[in-house]
Amino acid sequence: MWLMQGTPALFTDFYELTMAQVYFAKGMRETASFEVFVRHLPEHWGFSVMAGLPEVQSYLQEFRFVAEDVAYLRSTGRFEADFLEHLAGLKLDVKIRALPEGTVFFPNEPILEVSGPILQAQLLESYLLNILGFSIIEATVAARISIAAQGIPAVDFGLRRAQGPISSIRAARGGQIAGFAATSNVFAARLLGLPPSGTMAHSFIEAHESEEQAFRDFAELHRENAILLVDTYDSVEGIKTAAQVARGFLERGIRLRGIRLDSGDLVTLSRFARTRFREQGLEFLRIVASGDLDEFKVADLLAAGAEIDGFGIGTRFAVSQHAPAIGIVYKLAQYGDRQVYKTSPEKATLPGRKTIVRMRERDFVKPFDPQAHDLLQHVEATDPMPVVRQRLADEMSRLPDAVKALRNPACYPVEFA
Amino acid sequence: MWLMQGTPALFTDFYELTMAQVYFAKGMRETASFEVFVRHLPEHWGFSVMAGLPEVQSYLQEFRFVAEDVAYLRSTGRFEADFLEHLAGLKLDVKIRALPEGTVFFPNEPILEVSGPILQAQLLESYLLNILGFSIIEATVAARISIAAQGIPAVDFGLRRAQGPISSIRAARGGQIAGFAATSNVFAARLLGLPPSGTMAHSFIEAHESEEQAFRDFAELHRENAILLVDTYDSVEGIKTAAQVARGFLERGIRLRGIRLDSGDLVTLSRFARTRFREQGLEFLRIVASGDLDEFKVADLLAAGAEIDGFGIGTRFAVSQHAPAIGIVYKLAQYGDRQVYKTSPEKATLPGRKTIVRMRERDFVKPFDPQAHDLLQHVEATDPMPVVRQRLADEMSRLPDAVKALRNPACYPVEFA
Repeated sequence: MWLMQGTPALFTDFYELTMAQVYFAKGMRETASFEVFVRHLPEHWGFSVMAGLPEVQSYLQEFRFVAEDVAYLRSTGRFEADFLEHLAGLKLDVKIRALPEGTVFFPNEPILEVSGPILQAQLLESYLLNILGFSIIEATVAARISIAAQGIPAVDFGLRRAQGPISSIRAARGGQIAGFAATSNVFAARLLGLPPSGTMAHSFIEAHESEEQAFRDFAELHRENAILLVDTYDSVEGIKTAAQVARGFLERGIRLRGIRLDSGDLVTLSRFARTRFREQGLEFLRIVASGDLDEFKVADLLAAGAEIDGFGIGTRFAVSQHAPAIGIVYKLAQYGDRQVYKTSPEKATLPGRKTIVRMRERDFVKPFDPQAHDLLQHVEATDPMPVVRQRLADEMSRLPDAVKALRNPACYPVEFA
Repeated sequence: MWLMQGTPALFTDFYELTMAQVYFAKGMRETASFEVFVRHLPEHWGFSVMAGLPEVQSYLQEFRFVAEDVAYLRSTGRFEADFLEHLAGLKLDVKIRALPEGTVFFPNEPILEVSGPILQAQLLESYLLNILGFSIIEATVAARISIAAQGIPAVDFGLRRAQGPISSIRAARGGQIAGFAATSNVFAARLLGLPPSGTMAHSFIEAHESEEQAFRDFAELHRENAILLVDTYDSVEGIKTAAQVARGFLERGIRLRGIRLDSGDLVTLSRFARTRFREQGLEFLRIVASGDLDEFKVADLLAAGAEIDGFGIGTRFAVSQHAPAIGIVYKLAQYGDRQVYKTSPEKATLPGRKTIVRMRERDFVKPFDPQAHDLLQHVEATDPMPVVRQRLADEMSRLPDAVKALRNPACYPVEFA
């Protein structure tokens, strides 16, 4: 059960298939355009960051109904034989326009458009939302953490508390887009070409006769890469012991990498450690902090004068504790020649396909215009990671500070024509 | 990238491997026992529900380092050749004791114990926590929703907003353990043997010339299974139209299944629909409600007199909006003959392996006693789903109402000896 083999076509809501059955039976074969957008941003978010397109692309490439998928659907007794035959032979013929990854966007702007036979485009709804929603969340939270960290490297520590393995990869990749330095998740590191990073766990210390012995054993093998975890018994004593061990290695010409603080008052402890290390000629030791950090705590720590050289960002990032889901939706904009919309309270949508034009510090969402300089671009190949990272960095440098504020951001102006 | 092939061994934190390298190099080969427990429950939770063991079992069965895993680790330059060779030949030799699935548990009680060579047991930490944490969350939230729903069926609608595909399966399975009637997630339905369930989307209505036509087209094909979504334009009008279409089918001897309300004031609308349906001899039509529901909203709706026959539970369940992560940890309890513990502030642990004895409305956590009637059992085969569902149902019937309260529950007494 752990990572399933097979095709992703059944990762869909059952109603997509029951609707598709009707489209098929009634001969509804015209082209539909569906748009993905986010209705409103979570509290304190001034912007979102586009992400997830490589996974979208794989999904579309892998999408097909294999014999066992069709056999399962037949077994439900809800589908007619000719429809099932159609599914068995179905080859996706849809076109995608999307914001390039790393692009910043705002509520109600279409971020991805699927155009194709309505039956096909309908079936893609659930899993496209699944991919895009959490990929966007993680890229956005990571961007916020990078703002808070003011250039101090952040590392993804989220695997153990992520809601699943693919979620953990979406988190690591979100961090990568926003400039995180590394991930502790070895699978993600390999897949994404990120540096793997890690220190040591409390259990490692406990498995040794003493903290000092544990530090020595670890440092002996990992040397310039060794980061010593100092809070297993008492952080102040742990810092002193780490300094003593680091001195011993320095005398042999080996500079250990640093320490990690994982509990307690990180401001006081980090300042104590910095002072101690300076006094002992160990100013090269890096002080890494971890423990329920998020963009708010990182900002607060730095504002309070913490002496931190690296942040390990785990749970609160990997599940987006503050906003574990966003109101991302997939709405029909056009069917055949007809522009469509819904009017239910607070969920009304604008009719028709759209174009987004970004002028200086203002977006314009207007009826589709193939001549416009449109933020929505046809997705052929996805951009390499350095391009995506640079795009987000450029977006961040252009975005007004008030919109980037971590709390109560200003609203970026978007005009809907 | 979508669902990766390969083995799960690299779904680990890098530090597990750097520590393992030390254990290997220093000849630390004694048996370690690690315990998984949850430090404290999220606000408003009076209990947790054990879940995730089939996934644990698959993970342990699949765990091995294949050639490409080892090649990747070599490429990091952080590991010695003899250690990599050891990994390449590693066959897991660990024993698991765990609470059976569906068992209720409380903070700081060990819920799973891994015993084996410290190197091996250490490597399993990150992914065991990943599996257990979210499986437990989803089973617990589903149990809370079932309490709130008072016997009215709930259906998992969470796929689109789940943080990943495996997360969506953990959610569907959590619902299954807690007695949910179905899932909209077709992949999960097939994998878990749950009924797939679904209604229709707004886009289906919009793709038709009129709401009435959409209802007729859908009902024509899906008949006794047809649930009509009534809020695309105006819910009151939608209910009237649905009633009119249902009357037409009734005259042909076909009883449509019902309607779905997805926005607006669900109390007023459901009562309006019930009255309308009764007046028109359509009392068989079921009224399904959806739209940002969770245990609190379900309880509030029923307390306010809503007339609802089924709940579609999506986002807030599938990501556990209220508690997207729990403080689940993996701590060394014993290494060789030595019972170990840590003393860092607010993270202190009890030493040694443990046994849990559940007496009437009280748990006792005491030093490991192989003679005791221990809640922790050796995991050989996992229980079939009907056994797990029944176990949770029994646990729920035994648990005091005050502990099951959805808000401000009483604390179940656990004594640590």
